[in-house]
Amino acid sequence: MSQEQIKITLPDESIREYASGASAMDVAVSISEGLARNVLAAEVNGEVWDANRPMSQDSSVKLLTWNDQDGKSTFWHSSAHLMAEALEALYPGVKLGIGPAIENGYYYDVDFGEQEFDSAHLEKIEQKMLELARQKNTFIRKDISKADAVKYFESKGDEYKLELIEGLDDGSITFYEQGNFTDLCRGPHIPHTGFIKAIKCLSVAGAYWRGDEKRKQLTRIYGITFPKQKELTQYLHMLEEAKKRDHRKLGKELDLFTFSEKVGMGLPLWLPKGAKLRERLESFMRKAQVRSGYEPVVTPHIGHKDLYVTSGHYQKYGADSFQPISTPHEGEEFLLKPMNCPHHCEIYKSRPRSYKDLPVRYAEFGTVYRYEQSGELHGLTRVRGFTQDDAHIFCMQDQVKDEFTKVIDLVLYVFESLGFEDYTAQISLRDPENKEKYIGSDEAWEKAERAIIEAATEKGLNTVTELGEAAFYGPKLDFMVKDALGRKWQLGTIQVDYTLPERFELEYTGSDNQKHRPVMIHRAPFGSLERFVAVLIEHCGGEFPLWLTPDQVAILPISEKYADYAQELYKVLESEDITGFVDNRDEKIGRKIRDAEVKKIPIMLIVGEKEAADRAVSVRRHGHGDAGSFSIEEFITYFNNEKADSLSQR
Amino acid sequence: MSQEQIKITLPDESIREYASGASAMDVAVSISEGLARNVLAAEVNGEVWDANRPMSQDSSVKLLTWNDQDGKSTFWHSSAHLMAEALEALYPGVKLGIGPAIENGYYYDVDFGEQEFDSAHLEKIEQKMLELARQKNTFIRKDISKADAVKYFESKGDEYKLELIEGLDDGSITFYEQGNFTDLCRGPHIPHTGFIKAIKCLSVAGAYWRGDEKRKQLTRIYGITFPKQKELTQYLHMLEEAKKRDHRKLGKELDLFTFSEKVGMGLPLWLPKGAKLRERLESFMRKAQVRSGYEPVVTPHIGHKDLYVTSGHYQKYGADSFQPISTPHEGEEFLLKPMNCPHHCEIYKSRPRSYKDLPVRYAEFGTVYRYEQSGELHGLTRVRGFTQDDAHIFCMQDQVKDEFTKVIDLVLYVFESLGFEDYTAQISLRDPENKEKYIGSDEAWEKAERAIIEAATEKGLNTVTELGEAAFYGPKLDFMVKDALGRKWQLGTIQVDYTLPERFELEYTGSDNQKHRPVMIHRAPFGSLERFVAVLIEHCGGEFPLWLTPDQVAILPISEKYADYAQELYKVLESEDITGFVDNRDEKIGRKIRDAEVKKIPIMLIVGEKEAADRAVSVRRHGHGDAGSFSIEEFITYFNNEKADSLSQR
Repeated sequence: MSQEQIKITLPDESIREYASGASAMDVAVSISEGLARNVLAAEVNGEVWDANRPMSQDSSVKLLTWNDQDGKSTFWHSSAHLMAEALEALYPGVKLGIGPAIENGYYYDVDFGEQEFDSAHLEKIEQKMLELARQKNTFIRKDISKADAVKYFESKGDEYKLELIEGLDDGSITFYEQGNFTDLCRGPHIPHTGFIKAIKCLSVAGAYWRGDEKRKQLTRIYGITFPKQKELTQYLHMLEEAKKRDHRKLGKELDLFTFSEKVGMGLPLWLPKGAKLRERLESFMRKAQVRSGYEPVVTPHIGHKDLYVTSGHYQKYGADSFQPISTPHEGEEFLLKPMNCPHHCEIYKSRPRSYKDLPVRYAEFGTVYRYEQSGELHGLTRVRGFTQDDAHIFCMQDQVKDEFTKVIDLVLYVFESLGFEDYTAQISLRDPENKEKYIGSDEAWEKAERAIIEAATEKGLNTVTELGEAAFYGPKLDFMVKDALGRKWQLGTIQVDYTLPERFELEYTGSDNQKHRPVMIHRAPFGSLERFVAVLIEHCGGEFPLWLTPDQVAILPISEKYADYAQELYKVLESEDITGFVDNRDEKIGRKIRDAEVKKIPIMLIVGEKEAADRAVSVRRHGHGDAGSFSIEEFITYFNNEKADSLSQR
Repeated sequence: MSQEQIKITLPDESIREYASGASAMDVAVSISEGLARNVLAAEVNGEVWDANRPMSQDSSVKLLTWNDQDGKSTFWHSSAHLMAEALEALYPGVKLGIGPAIENGYYYDVDFGEQEFDSAHLEKIEQKMLELARQKNTFIRKDISKADAVKYFESKGDEYKLELIEGLDDGSITFYEQGNFTDLCRGPHIPHTGFIKAIKCLSVAGAYWRGDEKRKQLTRIYGITFPKQKELTQYLHMLEEAKKRDHRKLGKELDLFTFSEKVGMGLPLWLPKGAKLRERLESFMRKAQVRSGYEPVVTPHIGHKDLYVTSGHYQKYGADSFQPISTPHEGEEFLLKPMNCPHHCEIYKSRPRSYKDLPVRYAEFGTVYRYEQSGELHGLTRVRGFTQDDAHIFCMQDQVKDEFTKVIDLVLYVFESLGFEDYTAQISLRDPENKEKYIGSDEAWEKAERAIIEAATEKGLNTVTELGEAAFYGPKLDFMVKDALGRKWQLGTIQVDYTLPERFELEYTGSDNQKHRPVMIHRAPFGSLERFVAVLIEHCGGEFPLWLTPDQVAILPISEKYADYAQELYKVLESEDITGFVDNRDEKIGRKIRDAEVKKIPIMLIVGEKEAADRAVSVRRHGHGDAGSFSIEEFITYFNNEKADSLSQR
């Protein structure tokens, strides 16, 4: 009898046969040695496995490399084990808590006991890790009984691991070993430590065991690793750059916004320059929306509790939200609005609608409030109140594709005008195996999904389709934007909704004279204005496109003698909608220029004797230096051309 | 011994002597018979008296005529008695509740018992009242003991008056008699019923006795009277006109705003046309403010409770406001913001300030929320949430006058641009007798009051000065605007404030290098945008100035054949910032014109064969008819001239 064969299905649907017990790595080797050198782990029947774990039945296999998020996670998880091995070597008797992979890298929580440790030791750990990595020690998976697992960690005296084991069922416990190190671990891991070529221990923080502030504080060591030195160098450069571009830092330096504990955490106060920037963004969007057939509406920031009971938000989010506002005498209850859609539904409902009226597109810069725990708040990216460039389209089913296409156009116009050039679109559809999870008819879903896919395809978008990622109330399309540092941000969601029209009993009279339910599309190209501005600040490092910059010019008189001319110039430019300020301080011109450069003012206008006499300006561009001399009229033309160039011409 | 003499001081400070027991009417007669014929009552030592009540000591006397609010009130109060007399004559056994004067006219609450009554009877009452008025029955005041008062109303079987008497102290009770009628009444009254020449019973409503819904519902009859028939005619015309211009009615007809019970009472939802109008008002104000040196800020709609404890709002208004919003896990408490000033103080505080930075002027279209009982809500004039065109100026004491002058300029610019031509300014100062009631130094108050008076005088404002009407935290100036129907509205308050800078410990470093406290000025030319729009709608009857109208043009193709040209025209106008719509309905042109007139669209552009061929438009003006034929280019010029004319050129 020949050895038993198993069938392996690859992502391209091809099927190969292997002897039972073959691993994903065997599959890789059978395809190409080159590929095999890059395989970190494998997805086997939807679960991530060690690449060398034997398979005993027919399986579908996806080989995971550094290019897969799960490949990276496995790599970093293995790196945490490598760091733990180094720590045991350097600090005998160190006790270990948990050591997971995180979004960028990994950490390990450790208890150094009486041994001294501080961040100055990090380099020593990196060296030790590199030394151990070069040994190319294999990660070995071992099933182990609960009793043996307890025995092992009792012998090491590691109470943290013992506590973890306590919570596990016998028969489900595995150890992983590499070199001289053994850890309680579910896996998976990369084949051996040799894959890890570049190592950086990033930082040290305190972390309570199991996140419980009544328990012991352990030392959390963060690190990151890469398969190539070059990638680490790039990453560290990016970190450096990200620090410089941190929107909280630039927001302060450029006087854009501030926070006050007395007003409340997570509630930004927009300073004049930030408020101007917001005004420009809003006015830009308002114009684009009017051109695209949107109509403005304005609704209050609170709504009766009933409104959110009807919409379903109260049942779903009520307990974890800002709590209801009661009135003093009449026992009414209001909620801060977490979304604008219920209000817009009530406007739609305020009069009868005919098919001739559709699509109706209501747009509002609506400020909404959502509770976030104070520990989760972060600059403008996680706040408790934010303004959405929200709109809701009410249309007939067969208008969905057209409306989707128009929204895509609008979103792309926004991206272009703000310098985001690298983006993909993720289309989230129903799980075809679980259609009962979704509301709305089969036919409606099929039509809407087809409409989204066709609209995205016709627009030539680079798309990823995710089955089962749709909301229960409709399919959607999200834009994932890469910023200048290569970080990805989700911006611009377009969402079809069958629920709210149902819940609010929205109707229109069709050409058949019957009542029909409209479809609703939610969309917000910026999303949250606050978060968008944060992303934009970090993307452009505070050097906004000319059309958007709060202060477009700084007028710098060489001395007090030219203050009058400077002021006159300011008035002329103001009347031409060119904004900025005069720097009338009693400072040398060099100092004035340096300060304007720090403030990232795009255009400096230097005025002295010659300029005042000729009614001219000497133009200097931020980061580029002298741009020549212009008469005032020439400068206005120059400015308007530059401004138009900075705005997409779509 | 000669009869005792008393000295009477008149408002012009002149002093006259009369025999003790002389009445104000005697004083009037001694001045002029003509004057005496118009005297309705008199203010004697600050109290309103019957004109014929004898005076027995030196007094200051102001004669009250129809031109004084107190004169009118007395007149209407007497008219209520006259109506009661007529009711007793027409409906024997009718029982009477209370019958006061109100802002416009008077009412009486009565119990008709088994007798039938409805509003068809009102004319009969008017006739009876006129008949009784012509008898010129004198109003006679009588002191009466409690026992006698009870006896009188027991004999009439009027349980309402008996209940009222129960609450009064013996020795303080007076009756008033005229003709066959006697009422329990504190007075005062006009000399005799003959003054009442024109009478209108306006309406009938139900009213619970003593406002208690558990008690009997009486019939409330509203009426108004005048000394001349012509005044009644004018008043009724004004009422008719006011009904047509009611902003709630026009708001619906012009699709400006709506309310939804589900969102909440008193929380307006702005429909597209209303939202456009708001956008225009905001953009108009934004531009004017930038020119006047204001800087925009944006702050959240909630604030920590602490913020309002610091500002003092919580202690003062907390219990009667929207109650605090708690957070689910962290026990924080927030309030819906009732005012923007505390937020702006925190922005001022966000960095150190020098005297060189002042004045700082922060402007925000800030939406605030204030609880009003549901019964008090009224269209857009009494709402629970509204947007202020708010700004706060932080300046040095000696900048107050200059800043005040600039704010007056801005307010007048707003009035002119919106067609309000008739206004006065009320200056509210300290009560010089009670200086200790106010915060801030004597010197600061004197300076600020002088600054306001000088600023108002230099601007040539028509002012009224009210002592003791200042807020405890500073003097102020209010504009009282008369609308097209002669009704007065308070718009545009400018208020000096010494308290908030103190409470928030605001500072600046002076040229002396010492810390000083800035002065704060609150100002809002529109006040509440909601209320302002309501007043504006009623003032212009929905025919807004061209620059402000949401739909400036209606393009009316004569038939479907010209729909393409109409659409093309629409696009050209849109790109020139001329807004409106194409009426593409399958209707006759006459119908389209009529509908556009109803919608008060200022300009109708009729396009047919000739217009399409010549690329022209036939222009029709709302309410004025044909205005001739224009090429598209000519029309754009025409439009822009008309638009500029509609906006003040200040």
